[in-house]
Amino acid sequence: MSKEIPYKIYLEESEIPTQWYNVRADMKNKPAPLLNPGTLQPMKFEELRPVFCDELIKQELDDTTAYFDIPEEILNFYKMYRPSPVMRAYNLEKALGTPAKIYYKFEGNNTSGSHKLNSALAQAYYAKKQGLKGVTTETGAGQWGTALSMACAFFGIDCKVYMVKVSYEQKPFRREVMRTYGASVTPSPSNTTNIGRKMLEEFPGTTGSLGCAISEAVEVATTTEGYRYVLGSVLNQVLLHQSIIGLEAKAALDKYGIKPDIIIGCAGGGSNLGGLISPFMGEKLRGEADYRIIAVEPASCPSFTRGKFAYDFCDTGKVCPLAKMYTLGSGFIPSPNHAGGLRYHGMSSILSQLYDDGLMEARSVEQTAVFDAAEQFARTEGILPAPESSHAIRTAIDEALECKKTGDAKTILFGLTGTGYFDMTAYEKYNNGEMSDYIPTDEELEKSFANLPKVD
Amino acid sequence: MSKEIPYKIYLEESEIPTQWYNVRADMKNKPAPLLNPGTLQPMKFEELRPVFCDELIKQELDDTTAYFDIPEEILNFYKMYRPSPVMRAYNLEKALGTPAKIYYKFEGNNTSGSHKLNSALAQAYYAKKQGLKGVTTETGAGQWGTALSMACAFFGIDCKVYMVKVSYEQKPFRREVMRTYGASVTPSPSNTTNIGRKMLEEFPGTTGSLGCAISEAVEVATTTEGYRYVLGSVLNQVLLHQSIIGLEAKAALDKYGIKPDIIIGCAGGGSNLGGLISPFMGEKLRGEADYRIIAVEPASCPSFTRGKFAYDFCDTGKVCPLAKMYTLGSGFIPSPNHAGGLRYHGMSSILSQLYDDGLMEARSVEQTAVFDAAEQFARTEGILPAPESSHAIRTAIDEALECKKTGDAKTILFGLTGTGYFDMTAYEKYNNGEMSDYIPTDEELEKSFANLPKVD
Repeated sequence: MSKEIPYKIYLEESEIPTQWYNVRADMKNKPAPLLNPGTLQPMKFEELRPVFCDELIKQELDDTTAYFDIPEEILNFYKMYRPSPVMRAYNLEKALGTPAKIYYKFEGNNTSGSHKLNSALAQAYYAKKQGLKGVTTETGAGQWGTALSMACAFFGIDCKVYMVKVSYEQKPFRREVMRTYGASVTPSPSNTTNIGRKMLEEFPGTTGSLGCAISEAVEVATTTEGYRYVLGSVLNQVLLHQSIIGLEAKAALDKYGIKPDIIIGCAGGGSNLGGLISPFMGEKLRGEADYRIIAVEPASCPSFTRGKFAYDFCDTGKVCPLAKMYTLGSGFIPSPNHAGGLRYHGMSSILSQLYDDGLMEARSVEQTAVFDAAEQFARTEGILPAPESSHAIRTAIDEALECKKTGDAKTILFGLTGTGYFDMTAYEKYNNGEMSDYIPTDEELEKSFANLPKVD
Repeated sequence: MSKEIPYKIYLEESEIPTQWYNVRADMKNKPAPLLNPGTLQPMKFEELRPVFCDELIKQELDDTTAYFDIPEEILNFYKMYRPSPVMRAYNLEKALGTPAKIYYKFEGNNTSGSHKLNSALAQAYYAKKQGLKGVTTETGAGQWGTALSMACAFFGIDCKVYMVKVSYEQKPFRREVMRTYGASVTPSPSNTTNIGRKMLEEFPGTTGSLGCAISEAVEVATTTEGYRYVLGSVLNQVLLHQSIIGLEAKAALDKYGIKPDIIIGCAGGGSNLGGLISPFMGEKLRGEADYRIIAVEPASCPSFTRGKFAYDFCDTGKVCPLAKMYTLGSGFIPSPNHAGGLRYHGMSSILSQLYDDGLMEARSVEQTAVFDAAEQFARTEGILPAPESSHAIRTAIDEALECKKTGDAKTILFGLTGTGYFDMTAYEKYNNGEMSDYIPTDEELEKSFANLPKVD
């Protein structure tokens, strides 16, 4: 294959994958099931129905079907912003002086600013199809809430977002994007739920937490006729929807006969990484190819690299099912960092199992080094990356610099999940040299692990 | 031609135009030359050299050469974000129930968030090529300053941005994007220039103005070794660089045999509209085709629809050359509106001449109606548009609704110049029903016209 490789490899619209790929189908060791927090037995379809849409529960529980057809209505929206390009980082390579070939799959060119829209569309669609009036969710930094608002506006259903109060106040821009798409945005804790009222009573000055916002969103979904709750990461269904990232990336690279040696993605709950690697991991699981796969997480929230592989609560409120995953403990609160999407205490069960089986690596990186990479990338490649995505950039640059030392012309693919336009407070801290690199101590982690639920 | 038309028409990278088109070459009535404000004689090359780069002055003064080669270094950056797509607004059409076919050329998918990058790249490149150390400019809302910062980072030259103080303070995010790209951003008026110091002395509490920021940037450029001043709109050279928009749009439409009946663009200084229409206007001027071309401006700043065609100062400080243009008077201050890019008192000389010759139409629209259109567009097409671009959307929707009445299936092309991610304060006002629709009275305009310079 000696075709000249363009800066941007685009698929045709007609080449957008029409099926999602379910990597669980090819896993020998299946991810452990969600457990009912009361009975500690695997959650059944009927138990999940008050919370999630029927079709999404089927996807959640199905670990044998390899491919799911993508409904035409979702494909129609996809066509407004997909296929997303695989970009060749020619200018970054030049600046680094590396023999490595660096590619990135860019998911930020849509109004939600990230890959989150891929799953938001699917979840809003199935809610509409089930005849529901609307969905509820929580949002911290606001990326997921924005994506869901867009999806609900498109399918004409209601969207109630519980936004952590401190973000609601400090990130008015994200809030207004959601409102422009017709979502109602409520600062959490709020007076609209029992859990919210209880929190406000106990902690009158609280600025809220993601855990509390989840609890409020779930309460509203389960007590309001015609509503269900939706979640933007961690769940198996989300990774299924996000497989579109990897499927497109692989198809684009295949067109030019490119085979990545190393695949890198940032990992918070795992939605992006799980999506990006899925078809490559599928080949690896089936013994058809081999790839080095690296998950990158913040040193301040090191679920993979310093966490435990155990059953844990998915939320701090402990109302949701238990999941087996690499976790820092549901009570773990990372030190302030600026990658809101990577502050989750746990990790997708699928990725956790793959990591435990030695099928992928993990690495943690410090915040200032992440922003160094973000700045270099912005200046050479012209795209201002999200702090989350910049974790992957850091590791891609490190691997490319390693190639420079060894003279090895490796092919690197990383996921550029989103843009940083709504993260300028973080960049301001970096520009002013005021960024913190705090890393939790072993004692802090041990204390957090002590509260893991006892499950045999 | 019966090929199915995709949502996004992309050219291949190899199909990116390699020459800019200079519409002046085909104009019978050439735009009037810039005048020296002291002598009222046409500005000569030598007189402009202290302010602008040599190569850019040549482009500014040349009204006979039809095509200019785009240097390879600029094409290399273009490839990171161009070609930009021509999108078919299938979902908007469906929502409107119109037989019209609506296309838009989307220039917002780059970190500067707008088409401004097209000219910033060219201007930074020529500065670098001339061996300069850096460039200076002013910025209001910050779009142009961001674009220029990106371009200067890429070509490795210094960038000094004078940012209107009120924006510097109220739009810290834009400021931080510029700093991330290595630009120095100074609130204007500042202590770094004579003009700035004078302003601060006379008006200690002033929050600055674009006119003052221009004057500071020009002073620094003309008094600092190795620096020149650059401007993001109005100038002939800028329209030349922006012709890439129209050339790409025409090439993409030609691929599918699509001929627009109506071409619509928002108009502030004219950089986007002039670029979008250039090859179409060229055909019209040469008698090869006909198009309805509509410039859309805010009712609060109606240069075309209520201004005078006369020589006027380009800046409120009256230090820059005079240009013949549709103008509201250099002292005109539009009522608060949220389309910072459309608040300029004048208009490109090229577009002014074309309008005066009856080769294009103009229309003014009110702000609330503009945001109504923006919201509808965001919800159906998934892209949150900039307030500036939304002026074009408003008129495109109005024309499409007219087609619904008449049953006429017209083809409409409009310019979607940018995204609104940094304009959420405006959307917030709209979401809260607090938007103003103030329009200047005839008396206010007459008062402003009274200060037009006397030029025969």
